[in-house]
Amino acid sequence: MVKKINHIAIIVEDIEKSLVPYKQGLGLKPTDVEYVESYDVRVAFLPIGDTQIELVQPMGNDGDLVEFLKKTGGGLHHIALEVEDIHQTIHRLDQAGIPLKDRSTQKGAHNSTVTFAEQTGFDGVVIELVEPAK
Amino acid sequence: MVKKINHIAIIVEDIEKSLVPYKQGLGLKPTDVEYVESYDVRVAFLPIGDTQIELVQPMGNDGDLVEFLKKTGGGLHHIALEVEDIHQTIHRLDQAGIPLKDRSTQKGAHNSTVTFAEQTGFDGVVIELVEPAK
Repeated sequence: MVKKINHIAIIVEDIEKSLVPYKQGLGLKPTDVEYVESYDVRVAFLPIGDTQIELVQPMGNDGDLVEFLKKTGGGLHHIALEVEDIHQTIHRLDQAGIPLKDRSTQKGAHNSTVTFAEQTGFDGVVIELVEPAK
Repeated sequence: MVKKINHIAIIVEDIEKSLVPYKQGLGLKPTDVEYVESYDVRVAFLPIGDTQIELVQPMGNDGDLVEFLKKTGGGLHHIALEVEDIHQTIHRLDQAGIPLKDRSTQKGAHNSTVTFAEQTGFDGVVIELVEPAK
């Protein structure tokens, strides 16, 4: 079962610069910027209601996120849905014939378990599934 | 003050077809599809937590949404933030030097009042402001 939207990810070139309009223009309060080694990105979260916007700044020279940044100049990248049981959700997607990028799960931020559906299954939208650490 | 994310809009070519993976794969329950005359689109909402995904199918032959669909094949389009007082928020954006697409507000779905910020202010992300009907 999908419980809520865990976050909406936006790829940016310069996270400190990108935070300014959210803070000054919209009065949102971001978390501290942190480095996530497994994805080689710097991230900050902007809590809004029961969800949050995640700004993501790729730090490397290649990879999917860098390609996305080069191609688009930055922008909306994916929606992360928080689920109760990620393996049950994967099984359900399988049964509905909706492809996943990778059938195994990975460790995400804050010790969560994550996986991604193929964009082709959702009109080009990247859907991440997140099961938070218990 | 931003209260929550009112919706995340995804542009699609065929709304009934696009609803299938959300229903069958993720177990989400959409609202009925409705036609919104002012934008010439068909829409359906998928409630998730305190927010919702809005699928939007443009029905006309031109306009921004049709161009977006032609260019991208569909995908994530905008984030709508629900605010307490839209005119106060517009004033705050003005003071922070963040441009709006249109300085006047329009009527949105369910008699709400809406306006859009320029994408250039938010890393290419289209931010809609929504003040629900009182």
